[in-house]
Amino acid sequence: MSAFDFAPLLATGLPPPAVKWNGFARYNFIGGHNASEHVPVDDLLAAVTSVLRREGATLATYGLQSGPQGYRPLRDFLAAKLERTAGVSCTADDILIVSGSLQALDLVNGILLSRGDTVIVEQDTYQGALTRLARLGVNAVGIPLDRDGMRMDALGAALEDLKRRGVRPKYIYTVPTVQNPTGTIMPEARRHELLRLARRYGVPIFEDDCYSDLIWDGRRPPALHAMSEHGDVIHIGSFSKSIAPALRVGYIVAAWPLLSRMLALKTDAGSGALEQMVLGEYCPQHFDAHLPGLVCGLRGKLETLMDALNEQFGTAAEFDDPKGGIFLWVKLPDAVDTLKLVQPALASGVSINPGVEWSTDPAHGRSRMRLCFANPSHEAIRAGVAALAEVCRAEFGVPDRIANVQRARR
Amino acid sequence: MSAFDFAPLLATGLPPPAVKWNGFARYNFIGGHNASEHVPVDDLLAAVTSVLRREGATLATYGLQSGPQGYRPLRDFLAAKLERTAGVSCTADDILIVSGSLQALDLVNGILLSRGDTVIVEQDTYQGALTRLARLGVNAVGIPLDRDGMRMDALGAALEDLKRRGVRPKYIYTVPTVQNPTGTIMPEARRHELLRLARRYGVPIFEDDCYSDLIWDGRRPPALHAMSEHGDVIHIGSFSKSIAPALRVGYIVAAWPLLSRMLALKTDAGSGALEQMVLGEYCPQHFDAHLPGLVCGLRGKLETLMDALNEQFGTAAEFDDPKGGIFLWVKLPDAVDTLKLVQPALASGVSINPGVEWSTDPAHGRSRMRLCFANPSHEAIRAGVAALAEVCRAEFGVPDRIANVQRARR
Repeated sequence: MSAFDFAPLLATGLPPPAVKWNGFARYNFIGGHNASEHVPVDDLLAAVTSVLRREGATLATYGLQSGPQGYRPLRDFLAAKLERTAGVSCTADDILIVSGSLQALDLVNGILLSRGDTVIVEQDTYQGALTRLARLGVNAVGIPLDRDGMRMDALGAALEDLKRRGVRPKYIYTVPTVQNPTGTIMPEARRHELLRLARRYGVPIFEDDCYSDLIWDGRRPPALHAMSEHGDVIHIGSFSKSIAPALRVGYIVAAWPLLSRMLALKTDAGSGALEQMVLGEYCPQHFDAHLPGLVCGLRGKLETLMDALNEQFGTAAEFDDPKGGIFLWVKLPDAVDTLKLVQPALASGVSINPGVEWSTDPAHGRSRMRLCFANPSHEAIRAGVAALAEVCRAEFGVPDRIANVQRARR
Repeated sequence: MSAFDFAPLLATGLPPPAVKWNGFARYNFIGGHNASEHVPVDDLLAAVTSVLRREGATLATYGLQSGPQGYRPLRDFLAAKLERTAGVSCTADDILIVSGSLQALDLVNGILLSRGDTVIVEQDTYQGALTRLARLGVNAVGIPLDRDGMRMDALGAALEDLKRRGVRPKYIYTVPTVQNPTGTIMPEARRHELLRLARRYGVPIFEDDCYSDLIWDGRRPPALHAMSEHGDVIHIGSFSKSIAPALRVGYIVAAWPLLSRMLALKTDAGSGALEQMVLGEYCPQHFDAHLPGLVCGLRGKLETLMDALNEQFGTAAEFDDPKGGIFLWVKLPDAVDTLKLVQPALASGVSINPGVEWSTDPAHGRSRMRLCFANPSHEAIRAGVAALAEVCRAEFGVPDRIANVQRARR
């Protein structure tokens, strides 16, 4: 009774197999996990109760009574919310509900990209965007960032250079409102500049706004989608950061000629309907009131993280105070290779995202790391950073004894 | 202010754009929509209430506390249920929860198929499987069916023929337990034969068991996965047919060397957690008790459909009484091209699935159609079949006057 060997039948070019999941690290600074104390459980429960009582029987049909673009009340809420907060002028017909903004990435990539294509991204950017582009065989040109987001001088030069070489990029992917991982917000003037450049070179913009609800002072510039007069911006967003990441609900705002193409690739018989129904019921009443508490809680955890880093790493850890979001982008001394920090840190119960996975420039990312501060408690943040400093010192001699002494004083 | 033209940027080889959804047809016989009167709304609500109260805060983490394979209590339920009902011996570690069995198809195809590959399918089979294979550029060899499912003489001949030509198919895709669309159940003896043939030719089996909970007499042979001694069967299933299709929850049963490959392709940050939590809470208590009422209701609708077809079409509509499920596979006279029936029927408020989309053999599918009877009411079934008969007679002269007179007598 020999076991069947699937190996010779596997498709070529598969990514490496996944490793078995063994639970979260004790000090969990990775991914986009959020603050469990801020999941609005009671209000979600009230919402699911009222919506199921009213229209639970519609779960018998694919797409409920709303069709493949997603639950209509949720799209109506989004249209109003996007207008109110981001200046985006759209209706429910311009919105496609998707299974998290990762499906949005897949669908936008699906309709636009072919192997060998070129796109423009921010030099430090979302890992999930970079891995998708790599798997599609697409060339990602990274544009350096400053404290106002993507640098327009560098973008202009890159567009000109590509044009000279006969390359028309398929899109400019940007997270302009609480950039991932740097936490910057692109000011309105620079947004105008970005739109002008995109227009001049005939390149559409792919605007990922998934963190825009998490801004400390609540103030944001209009979305690029709102500012464009030419329909050249595809806008995506998510409820993962504002409500709960395990609810896989995101959305795409685009005109029908694009949505109809994406729908043709969305062969999943619809995104999960119960999650859409719950959000469609919860959000009109509670979304706005829910945010301030969450944002305040996140800001508090960020303070704790920055304090802990200052205390444990001293000047060895450099970072800018982000404008919002759930992560801090940290520069360690050049001697530190954060990729080599991952395993020893994990052995000490600390999980981190190494910078090289979040940058198009390996040299730039090498000594950087992304720390998500939303999920761990204040206590875990302090203990985790202390443990990380210890591992980092053991592996790379950084931070030096001074910080260690400071830690001993706690 | 000219609008941006995305057309030159679209990837090549895209499927045609989707058409705008305009609501369901008045008499809705398409897709896998289920009976709204049998969605267990109250018990689902009780389940969501207890699970959210107990562990709603875990929605803050991707994968809850269960990791990327899906909500652990749901996997535990499935392992026990599959053992009890289908003889499948597995644990939660061998199960991957997915966003509906369509994602299961995508992941299995993703790890095994490359352009130019060959697979074996049932000649009449699920449209979503066929369209996926076509889009992947995979050659689908259809095996004719009889009243016991896939014919083993034809399968043996096809495997031998492919072997002679140096082609090793990547899998044999089968819906052995309430076949889609024919509604047959492959008897245990033929399952042994299928496993022997698969073994002899070194071809794994891809078993789609998504209708196996909907059997009139509740009796089913063991799953192929349970009967194989060699680990050469990948088994998938779904809650779409047993609970509600708009809940996008399916599953894959396979060994870790395969699941780890699929997980590497499942870059969606997990399937919708709330839907998994609800099912994980609902099913252990209620799943078994829920089925008989649903199955009885479906059988009743099938009786109505068969009566209506006999009444309206007379001998012009031929079909076998299926063993379970939610659809009837109907043969009309050769003169009828059901693809050409679709639009005029829709104009009369009747939606049908034309046979050509559910068969590898266009000539065989041409005069056939699939009618899903789960969603429309008894009254809608009768009125819809009457409307369809009228359209069919206007378009193709079938059924003739006799059936018409019979209808007038009602």
